[in-house]
Amino acid sequence: MSPKALDYESINENVKKVAYAVRGELYLRASELQKEGKKIIFTNVGNPHALGQKPLTFPRQVVALCQAPFLLDDPNVGLIFPADAIARAKHYLSMTMGGLGAYSDSRGLPGIRKEVAEFIERRDGYPSDPELIYLTDGASKGVMQILNTIIRGEMDGILVPVPQYPLYSAAISLFGGSLVPYYLEETANWGLDINNVRQSVAQARSRGITVRAMVIINPGNPTGQCLSEANLKELLRFCFQENLVLLGDEVYQQNIYQDERPFLSARKVLMDMGPPMSKEVQLVSFHTVSKGYWGECGQRGGYFEMTNIPPRTVDEIYKVASVSLSPNVPGQIFIQYNSFFYCCTFYASILLLILGSPDIPYSSCYVRPRNILSVFSVRTDGQPAKARRHLISEVRYREVRMAEIQFLKGILGSLRRRAQIMTDGFNSCRNVVCNFTEGAMYSFPQVRLPPKAIEVAKKAGKIPDVLYCLKLLEATGISTVPGSGFGQKEGVFHLRTTILPAEEDMPAIMASFKKFNDEFMEQYEDHRGYSRM
Amino acid sequence: MSPKALDYESINENVKKVAYAVRGELYLRASELQKEGKKIIFTNVGNPHALGQKPLTFPRQVVALCQAPFLLDDPNVGLIFPADAIARAKHYLSMTMGGLGAYSDSRGLPGIRKEVAEFIERRDGYPSDPELIYLTDGASKGVMQILNTIIRGEMDGILVPVPQYPLYSAAISLFGGSLVPYYLEETANWGLDINNVRQSVAQARSRGITVRAMVIINPGNPTGQCLSEANLKELLRFCFQENLVLLGDEVYQQNIYQDERPFLSARKVLMDMGPPMSKEVQLVSFHTVSKGYWGECGQRGGYFEMTNIPPRTVDEIYKVASVSLSPNVPGQIFIQYNSFFYCCTFYASILLLILGSPDIPYSSCYVRPRNILSVFSVRTDGQPAKARRHLISEVRYREVRMAEIQFLKGILGSLRRRAQIMTDGFNSCRNVVCNFTEGAMYSFPQVRLPPKAIEVAKKAGKIPDVLYCLKLLEATGISTVPGSGFGQKEGVFHLRTTILPAEEDMPAIMASFKKFNDEFMEQYEDHRGYSRM
Repeated sequence: MSPKALDYESINENVKKVAYAVRGELYLRASELQKEGKKIIFTNVGNPHALGQKPLTFPRQVVALCQAPFLLDDPNVGLIFPADAIARAKHYLSMTMGGLGAYSDSRGLPGIRKEVAEFIERRDGYPSDPELIYLTDGASKGVMQILNTIIRGEMDGILVPVPQYPLYSAAISLFGGSLVPYYLEETANWGLDINNVRQSVAQARSRGITVRAMVIINPGNPTGQCLSEANLKELLRFCFQENLVLLGDEVYQQNIYQDERPFLSARKVLMDMGPPMSKEVQLVSFHTVSKGYWGECGQRGGYFEMTNIPPRTVDEIYKVASVSLSPNVPGQIFIQYNSFFYCCTFYASILLLILGSPDIPYSSCYVRPRNILSVFSVRTDGQPAKARRHLISEVRYREVRMAEIQFLKGILGSLRRRAQIMTDGFNSCRNVVCNFTEGAMYSFPQVRLPPKAIEVAKKAGKIPDVLYCLKLLEATGISTVPGSGFGQKEGVFHLRTTILPAEEDMPAIMASFKKFNDEFMEQYEDHRGYSRM
Repeated sequence: MSPKALDYESINENVKKVAYAVRGELYLRASELQKEGKKIIFTNVGNPHALGQKPLTFPRQVVALCQAPFLLDDPNVGLIFPADAIARAKHYLSMTMGGLGAYSDSRGLPGIRKEVAEFIERRDGYPSDPELIYLTDGASKGVMQILNTIIRGEMDGILVPVPQYPLYSAAISLFGGSLVPYYLEETANWGLDINNVRQSVAQARSRGITVRAMVIINPGNPTGQCLSEANLKELLRFCFQENLVLLGDEVYQQNIYQDERPFLSARKVLMDMGPPMSKEVQLVSFHTVSKGYWGECGQRGGYFEMTNIPPRTVDEIYKVASVSLSPNVPGQIFIQYNSFFYCCTFYASILLLILGSPDIPYSSCYVRPRNILSVFSVRTDGQPAKARRHLISEVRYREVRMAEIQFLKGILGSLRRRAQIMTDGFNSCRNVVCNFTEGAMYSFPQVRLPPKAIEVAKKAGKIPDVLYCLKLLEATGISTVPGSGFGQKEGVFHLRTTILPAEEDMPAIMASFKKFNDEFMEQYEDHRGYSRM
């Protein structure tokens, strides 16, 4: 009998070509070991709640009330739900036609899209159109939809940074396009060198590939760098000259661990550059509720914003979105909290600066005076008294809870410290070097594997960094992802780990890593190593 | 300058080919009219809560507590949440690693998949393997993933019933395959004639198409029929002979409005047929939380179950699912309620039969004695005393709430009556005939359009049933979907409407439809009609 349609040999070849290392061999082995009773530290995927981070109470109270709207009629509701959460739940329910149990419009609830547009306007200082904001079940679904719209066949190329988050290579394989890699500069803190990009495009064209889009991941995954304004300008100019759509993966925009290089959205920099570029460059930006430092991954909320995309294409994207009816509605409500907490922290920080709250010292406010002034000039035409009044009413309107903000600041402060502990830890290890994590939630150290280790791996049919990470997992329970899953230069090896384990566990984890690494290097650097395998 | 990658003329042609009438021209026009202040009755999509149906309280209480787990430590929680909901929320939270805010495994939470497998076993009388059940963001996402796995190119054909739910035509276009239509028999209450299927396959093959899979929608959408056991056996045999994967869209399995033809799953019938077929036919079955009569559409929960799919293919499907990380976790919890309430209603009905509750008369129990006996024989080897004990403990374990069950029975009973009111209403109209809705949530009347109306539509560049539905919308606010969006025989016209408006509104809606239709027919059947346009 001939093979059946779902026999392995006869399924879609593009499906087979998909590789997704974040949940690949290492993850599967870690899951097995866990079943066998071994304690596993899952640092393979940025999933903060799985590692013990608690949710913010306010958005959870609100969504709980939206799920159980009959509680709003219960005379005892005020005993366990605060008034502001009740008010906000009513506000969201009023946006729906039938509550969380009804499909929304396929682009998401209009009220939420409007508030996302307001958030973007506040962030960038330029108006944003809710009609060009589509809500999605997490950012990945949006990225896949846009790539599916762009890719027509194997001669269509998409520029992707290397190392990259493997969603991009996976989706490009699935839709049958060509990935055109451009290398980030490890020695320049994973910065982007536009000459590398230019070379990549030239090489791809010489192979007959039409390069159609460029992906940036800012802050970087797995690399953690923040792109500078100069870098963003260069690459936007390049997209303009070369007629490329820019896909801006900005899902880590709220996770920044230094002040020197703040996050700048591609859209803001594009608008700053003015016409003709600001009217011409096609840009799609992605954001999510999973990757803010409150980390609501399981809720699967996200959105993309389209800039300079013609209405007929916007309609086509709407049509395809409508085939799956609507993104999940509870996740849509969480999306709004991205902007809500952004604004809360933002405005509360400003308020504290102005009113001089004794609770939070200036140094822990993460909004810097420069940003404050730019907000003032946008919102109040630079009149301080009006600004102050506006600000106070804004904060009141937004029902800022100081406790939540403290909690968020606590998480962010701890992540900063964890980024530092991890980077320092890696850099103290033999044959390991690691750039500082400027943003996102990962460390991506380079491990200089001894030739013997490479040889042994090859004999075992493994990529050398896979062998290293498997041995790390077996020895310590630390579940990482080998650098080869993200792409790296020939002969150079890395691993990616999240910086998410609890701060108090961090020294022990790094000590455990160091001990393993010392033994590994000991084994393979001396000449007895090979025979001891 | 050459067109940019997201200009309409240069995007993926397969995206442009996608058509999805359920949210097409009629829906867009209805949305416009609504903005202008017109009252619209949205019967274009099966979205019960949007039309006023209330959610069940128990699952909502449980999910609300899972969203706000800190309430479980609040001494006042018992004042607004009942003990059984608290216990069940703890049960679900114990299945997660980090609550609803953490990504689950990409296939869904193992605990939920296990309980879905138990539901399937109860329903069909055959064991089900949780490792072959994958949870999804609604059924549509699962259907798309499986079609993407099967379709390799334009010469791969998928058999789809006509009329069909346009998810299938849309997904086949998007993935670049070929839709091979087989017609359902309107005169035989939309039954499936295997000879039609055979002819379609022969025709497709003569065009060089490799037919790889067959879709059935049971109960039918938009047609509302339940497939008979004989029909299911025939088509399974056909799939076996012709080496086709069967895709069983069974999302309406819990919405059945008559007793003569109960829902039978393709999997049960396949297992009943025994080897070699039960070991050979590749089957993927789809279900959702949206389309049970509790209608939790906005939560986007669903699953598919794979039968006779080789492990390497199952692994590939897992890999591709993992690229989008995980289905939304709250939706996963709702999935379990499909089985939970199925079992509740099922067992409670049996219990009532045995214990003779005065509350619910036998006639409103929708579980029939034949089914009860089959469950008894499976679960208790036919020993009545043991069966009864088992049953009572089962019901207790499942915390059956009589009020919820009454509520569900109320919805189901009302849907039965609404199906009848609607079918009778349509059949009383001039030039309209309509089969009875045996299951699902739609009526699909045929409208015999006068030649004049067809002529006028063609002159206006509209498909005739689109013209009819647009005029219906403008005149009455009733938002339907033209039959051409689902496919129909040449020269025959239909519309699809849900049976979901509130029962008390139904007579007025049908009177409004009748009045419009009378006027329409009046206008186009007499000779003055054309000039009056």
